Amino acid sequence: MIRFERLRDFIAAAFVKVGMRERDAQIVGALMAEADLQGSDGHGVIRLPQYLKRIRAGGVNLHPNIRVEKERAGMALIHGDNGMGHLVMKRAAELAIAKAKDAGVAWVGAHWSNHAGPASLYARMPLAHDMIGLYFAVGNANHLPPWGGLEMLLSTNPIAAAIPAGEEPSIVLDMATTVAAYGKVKAKAARGESMPEGWMIDRAGRPLTDPKRADEGFLLPIGGYKGYGLALVVGLIAGTLNSAAMGKDLIDFNRDAGGATNTGQAIVAIDPAAFGDLAQFKANVDTLIRDLRSSERMPGVDRIWLPGEQSHEKRVRQAKEGIAIAPQLMKTLDDLAREIGIEPLGGT
Amino acid sequence: MIRFERLRDFIAAAFVKVGMRERDAQIVGALMAEADLQGSDGHGVIRLPQYLKRIRAGGVNLHPNIRVEKERAGMALIHGDNGMGHLVMKRAAELAIAKAKDAGVAWVGAHWSNHAGPASLYARMPLAHDMIGLYFAVGNANHLPPWGGLEMLLSTNPIAAAIPAGEEPSIVLDMATTVAAYGKVKAKAARGESMPEGWMIDRAGRPLTDPKRADEGFLLPIGGYKGYGLALVVGLIAGTLNSAAMGKDLIDFNRDAGGATNTGQAIVAIDPAAFGDLAQFKANVDTLIRDLRSSERMPGVDRIWLPGEQSHEKRVRQAKEGIAIAPQLMKTLDDLAREIGIEPLGGT
Repeated sequence: MIRFERLRDFIAAAFVKVGMRERDAQIVGALMAEADLQGSDGHGVIRLPQYLKRIRAGGVNLHPNIRVEKERAGMALIHGDNGMGHLVMKRAAELAIAKAKDAGVAWVGAHWSNHAGPASLYARMPLAHDMIGLYFAVGNANHLPPWGGLEMLLSTNPIAAAIPAGEEPSIVLDMATTVAAYGKVKAKAARGESMPEGWMIDRAGRPLTDPKRADEGFLLPIGGYKGYGLALVVGLIAGTLNSAAMGKDLIDFNRDAGGATNTGQAIVAIDPAAFGDLAQFKANVDTLIRDLRSSERMPGVDRIWLPGEQSHEKRVRQAKEGIAIAPQLMKTLDDLAREIGIEPLGGT
Repeated sequence: MIRFERLRDFIAAAFVKVGMRERDAQIVGALMAEADLQGSDGHGVIRLPQYLKRIRAGGVNLHPNIRVEKERAGMALIHGDNGMGHLVMKRAAELAIAKAKDAGVAWVGAHWSNHAGPASLYARMPLAHDMIGLYFAVGNANHLPPWGGLEMLLSTNPIAAAIPAGEEPSIVLDMATTVAAYGKVKAKAARGESMPEGWMIDRAGRPLTDPKRADEGFLLPIGGYKGYGLALVVGLIAGTLNSAAMGKDLIDFNRDAGGATNTGQAIVAIDPAAFGDLAQFKANVDTLIRDLRSSERMPGVDRIWLPGEQSHEKRVRQAKEGIAIAPQLMKTLDDLAREIGIEPLGGT
């Protein structure tokens, strides 16, 4: 088990070693460690080797001039200058929150950004200001064809939303618009497991259940053509609207380490206090949560979960007990530490 | 085939007959006829008997004072005063558009509204101003339990989005967060057809395919627990945020004709000109549409559709040739016309 602070500092040390500013490295380290803390394993420290590879290949700008390019009362557009997505989207979220304090609602888009980890990290930022957060992003590789098609022109474009409650944990939804995110397919392959039907199909439209054959097929969108429409709309408002990459412009960041991704993301901050009484709003969210949680269950169902509740429990537990890192990942990280010359993470 | 203008005037005459102001009746008539024009049959003139029943039972306020209750630069909250949802949401959309011209993005919520027809009607309103429209609504009857649950505490809460293109038809997504909208189940029952597996389950979690047994089960959310999360979040931002009904507060407007629904809806207008060059944005949307449409298809697929393309084609065709009204619906409308003393719609 690794303490949050130790994981954050390890990640930060690695980034500093390849030339990132100390302050920026601390920010990225904290956000990546927070991903692991809440159980978003596929988006935390596991990404460190890939991020370092992209930095070394010149694919990410270590000293970006992240700046507000366009601004009105209810919106802004951030130019990320090809910096780490974590830095760009933290800035975007802070700006959205500040603007929403005046405007009630503020929408901040970004272009020339990069992969920023789990969508929920940014959707959750407004919560500390008693605000609702929404987050939309263009994924970093196209794994989804249009409905009925064979060409992968769309990504798993995620949607996240965070709604503050009163005494209950906040509601936090973080979902890809495909049945399974591509990271889950990779995880199945790594564990030698097969995928359930409904995650992927092959080029003839037949179910594909062997994750090692993932290259021969595509992810399926949620609700069939509906998920295709959602992925497209999210790509339009997070990508095209921000003059960021979308469709054929998108590079696969797994295969092209040196090219700029021009990733597009957007965050919306909504201040419930602009719409009515804040305490009443939070009490109503509490009531809704309790009504759902205590409602009658199907046979064999132990508990009804609210979106984000499992992540919340994991965050609380791992903040106390430390973060579980899989042995294989620990070995990869220790090898990496030796290679770049920083103190290994080790275990306790 | 009925001309759009004739259908609009027929609907307006019916509302005037039960006491609605002439100007309001024309607005509601035009929006309901537009629903039929674009093929949203389940949300057009077919709803007229139900709307009249609610009006006669005192469930809808015929002379509402629809007003702006809260306002900031990037948002407003409209009090619908229990007027027809069409009037409330047209006002909300117009306000969002006007505000977005200054603020770049504007979010307008509504409470004490009512059923307003298809979500796409309102999401499409910003298109005429070269803006993107998003629309969220709380449905008017709970048909969806939380994931793993048996109590129907959520509705099919729809999402709509409209994105302007240049030479191509706009992209218009309009979707319930359930695999099938409840109207589709009713239509299957009316035609004596069975439903495909995946639309509904019974209380033991088994597939339910007989639409006449719909009362014994529930709709399934898209993508399983993901659709449950989406329906919940849409309900929170369209309902709870606006102090509108959500969860246990919701009345089933099919069963309770005399009660106020306190329906919550929200519309967002986004001005692409605030984010960059408008012509370039529209050209990029065109390119994306063409790339998707001309991409390689699965065996047996004739055409790749963009969201809203089929509605667009229907709208163009029916504007020229007239709107097809099913014989059974025509009879219902003619009976209604005789009953309330207006000229029947007839056919041509």
